[in-house]
Amino acid sequence: MIKSPSISFDITADQLAHALTAHDEQGIAAALAPLDTTEVIEQFERLNAAERGLVYAALRPEVAQHVFDRLDTSLQVEIVEQLSEAEAATVFALMRPDDRVALADELPESMVAALMHGLDERSRTLTTAVRSYPHRAVGRFMSPEFVTTDPTLSAGQTLERVRARLDDAESIYTIPVTDAQARLIGVISLRDVLRADPSTPISSIMKKPLSVVASMNVEDAARYCAETKVLVLPVIDEGDRLVGILTVDDALRILEDAESEDAARSGGSEPLRRPYLATPVRSIVKARVVWLLVLALGATLTVKVIGAFEATLEAQVVLSLFIPLLIGTGGNTGNQAATTITRALALGDVRPRDVFKVFTREVRVGALLGLLLGSLGFVIAALAFTVPLGLVIGLTLLGVCTMAASLGGLMPLLGKAVRADPAVFSNPFISTFVDATGLIIYFLVASTVLGL
Amino acid sequence: MIKSPSISFDITADQLAHALTAHDEQGIAAALAPLDTTEVIEQFERLNAAERGLVYAALRPEVAQHVFDRLDTSLQVEIVEQLSEAEAATVFALMRPDDRVALADELPESMVAALMHGLDERSRTLTTAVRSYPHRAVGRFMSPEFVTTDPTLSAGQTLERVRARLDDAESIYTIPVTDAQARLIGVISLRDVLRADPSTPISSIMKKPLSVVASMNVEDAARYCAETKVLVLPVIDEGDRLVGILTVDDALRILEDAESEDAARSGGSEPLRRPYLATPVRSIVKARVVWLLVLALGATLTVKVIGAFEATLEAQVVLSLFIPLLIGTGGNTGNQAATTITRALALGDVRPRDVFKVFTREVRVGALLGLLLGSLGFVIAALAFTVPLGLVIGLTLLGVCTMAASLGGLMPLLGKAVRADPAVFSNPFISTFVDATGLIIYFLVASTVLGL
Repeated sequence: MIKSPSISFDITADQLAHALTAHDEQGIAAALAPLDTTEVIEQFERLNAAERGLVYAALRPEVAQHVFDRLDTSLQVEIVEQLSEAEAATVFALMRPDDRVALADELPESMVAALMHGLDERSRTLTTAVRSYPHRAVGRFMSPEFVTTDPTLSAGQTLERVRARLDDAESIYTIPVTDAQARLIGVISLRDVLRADPSTPISSIMKKPLSVVASMNVEDAARYCAETKVLVLPVIDEGDRLVGILTVDDALRILEDAESEDAARSGGSEPLRRPYLATPVRSIVKARVVWLLVLALGATLTVKVIGAFEATLEAQVVLSLFIPLLIGTGGNTGNQAATTITRALALGDVRPRDVFKVFTREVRVGALLGLLLGSLGFVIAALAFTVPLGLVIGLTLLGVCTMAASLGGLMPLLGKAVRADPAVFSNPFISTFVDATGLIIYFLVASTVLGL
Repeated sequence: MIKSPSISFDITADQLAHALTAHDEQGIAAALAPLDTTEVIEQFERLNAAERGLVYAALRPEVAQHVFDRLDTSLQVEIVEQLSEAEAATVFALMRPDDRVALADELPESMVAALMHGLDERSRTLTTAVRSYPHRAVGRFMSPEFVTTDPTLSAGQTLERVRARLDDAESIYTIPVTDAQARLIGVISLRDVLRADPSTPISSIMKKPLSVVASMNVEDAARYCAETKVLVLPVIDEGDRLVGILTVDDALRILEDAESEDAARSGGSEPLRRPYLATPVRSIVKARVVWLLVLALGATLTVKVIGAFEATLEAQVVLSLFIPLLIGTGGNTGNQAATTITRALALGDVRPRDVFKVFTREVRVGALLGLLLGSLGFVIAALAFTVPLGLVIGLTLLGVCTMAASLGGLMPLLGKAVRADPAVFSNPFISTFVDATGLIIYFLVASTVLGL
C-alpha cells in the first residue's frame, strides 16, 4: 500500500546505495527483501549498469523473473547479456511470446537462434508466428495465447473451456467467438457467460465484435482499444481469422511508450528508450545532438536574412533590440498551433482531409492573437520609444502571429501526409521557417513605416 | 472491424454534412444508422454545437446513452443543457457514480441539486460519497460499486457472490478481500477463483493487495495502476477500509487526459478540454493568449539586455546577424533537457531529491553539446566571416549550451518542488532566462574577444 511512498522509497535507496558502494551482497539482499516487484523496478531503473548487475543477482529467483518481465526491453537486453546461457534460456522460456519477440529484436541473431532453439515446440511456433509480422504492426505486439468459444456451444460449455485454459490464456475475461474456419464472428464477456443460464447457446448472447487487422499500426490499434474501452481487442488476419488478442494493459503500455516518444520529439530530441538515470551521458548527447545540429543549420537562414537587411539595421540599430522578442513570439505561436494539431491528430480528432478547416481556423486564431499582442506591443513600444517604432512592432506582431499560427497548424498535417512523425516534422520547419519569415516581415514593415 | 477506417469514415462524414446542411432529419438518421458507438463519437466530435444537438436528437435511445457515457465531460454538459428536465434526469440516473460526479462538477449547482434529487437512494448515497473527495483525488474518480469476498469464504462461495453482483459491480475480474471491519487484506483474481477447488478457503489463495489511498492524486494513482499492470486497483481510506476501485480502462483514460494536458502545456497553451474541431475559435485564442503574453513580457528582458549593449552592436552590426541562431540554439538545448526531465518526473524515473544528479548530468551533456556545436560554429563563422568572429560564435555556443541544458534540467524539478506543473513552470523560465542570459554571454564574449 502506498501511503507515503517517497519516504520509504528514499530510505531503501539510501540503504541500497550504501550496500552497493560497499559491495555488500547481504546488505543488498536485505535492502531488497521487503520490496514488491514494482518497488524493486523503481530502484532498479535508477542504477547504472554495473549496479543493476549486482542487484539482479541478489534477487530471489521468483522475484527476479517478475522484475525481468516488467523491465524495459533495453534493460532486459543488458541482463540477458550478463546471464549464463542456461540462465538466459530459462528466462526466455518463461516470457510471454510477444515480450519474447520484443527482446529478440534487440539481441544478436546468433543468440536469438540459440534461445529459440531452447524453447519447447509450442512456444517456438507461437513466437515465430508473432515474429512474422512487420515492425510496428499490432501483430507483433499481440498475444497468440487466447481461449475462444463457438456459437453452437452453450454458456456452460464455454465456462468449461475457459477453466481448461486458465494457465496459458492471456485473458479469459473477454472471449472471442469463432466459426469453423476460425473467423471471428463475435465476442462474449466472462461476465455474460456467468450471467447466462448454462444451457444458453453462445449464438444468442454474443455481441458484435470490435477488432483490428494484424497489419495495423500498433499505436493506432492501442488507441482504438483505449477509445472503445474494451478489455481485450481481438486481432484478425486479412481473411478475418482470429490470430491474437491485444489486452488493455498492453495497450496502455504501448500508448505510454508512444507518448514518451512524442514528448521527446516535441522537445527536439530522440527518445532515450530507457529511464533517464539509467542512460549514460553519451547516449543522452547522441539523442540530442542531431536535432540541435539540424535546427542550428536551419537557423543559418536567419543569419542570411539579417545579412540581407544589414543596411537597414545599420541605419537603425534600435531595430535589433526587438529581434528576439518578435521571432520568439512567432515561434511560440507556431508551437502552440503545431502542438495542438499534433495531439489532435494522435487522438483522431483531426484527420489529414481537414487541412482546409484547420488552416482557416488557425488563420483566424493567429490574426486574433496578433491583434491583441500587436495592440499591446504598439502601446508599449510607442511609449518607451517612438510612435513609428510602436507601429513597426505592432504591425510585425500581427503579421508574425497570423503567419506562425497558420503555418504551425499546417505542418503536422503535411508531416502526416508524407508519413513522417507529425511532431518531428513540424519542429525544425517551424523554428526555421517562422524565424526567417518573421524577420523578413519585420524588416519589410520597418523599411516601409520608417521610410528606410 | 476496422480495415480501411478512413474511407468509410469520410463517406459517412460527407453524408452527414449533407444532411445537416439540408436539416434533413431522416438523412441524419440514415447516415448514423450503420455506425457503432465509437464511430458515432468520432463523427460527433467534429461537429459544432448546433450540429451536435441535431445529431444527438437523431440517435436511437439505446445508442444515445452509450454515446453520452463515453463523451468528454464538456460535451456532456452541452447536451444535458439542451435536454428537457425529465430527459436529463434519465441520462443522469443511468450514469456511473464517478462519471456522474465529473459531470456534476461542470453543471450549475441548482441543476445538480435537481438531478441528485431525482436519483434513487442507493445511487445518491454512492454519488455523494464519491463527491466528498477533494478535486484531483483518486477518490473522486474511483467506482464505489464493487464486489468483495471474505478470507473465511470458499472459492465456490466467492463465485456465488460474484454471480449475485454481475449487474452492478464495476469489475468482477479482480476481487478485493476484506476483513470484518471492511479493511482490505488481499485480492484474488476471478481466474484464481475459477482455478481453485470450490471448497478452498480464500485465505489460502488470496494475494497481497496493491492499493492506493483515496486522497492520492489521481494521475499518480493511474500511473501506479499502469506500472503494476493490474486490472483493478483497490482504493482505501486512511483506516485501510476499502472504499472503491480504479479500473485499468479508467486509468488509461485519466493518463490520456493528463498527457493531452502536458502536450498542450509543453507547447505553451492551456489544454482545450474538448476535441479541436469542436472548440470555438474564441476558446482556442483564450487558451493561448495568456501564455503568449507572459512569454512576450518575459521577452522584454531581451530588449533590455540588447539595449544595454547597444554601443557594442553599433560598433559591430555584424553581431546582430547571429542573435536568432545563438538564442535559438540555447532555447532548443534548454527545451530538450526540460522535456526529458519533465517526462522522467511524470514516469517516476527521476524524483525531486535527484536534483544534484540531474544537474551534474546536464552540465556534462550541455558542455559536450556545446563543444560539438561550438567547434562547428567556429569553423563555419571563421570561414564565412573572420577568425575572431568565429571564436566569438564558438565560445558563445559552448557557454550557452552548458547554461541552457543545466537550467533546463533544473526547472522541472524546481517546479515540482513548489508544487507547480513541471511543464508549465519550465516553459516561460527557459524562454526568458535562457534568451536573456544567452545574450549576456554573447555580448560579454564578443567585447572580450573583439576588444570592444
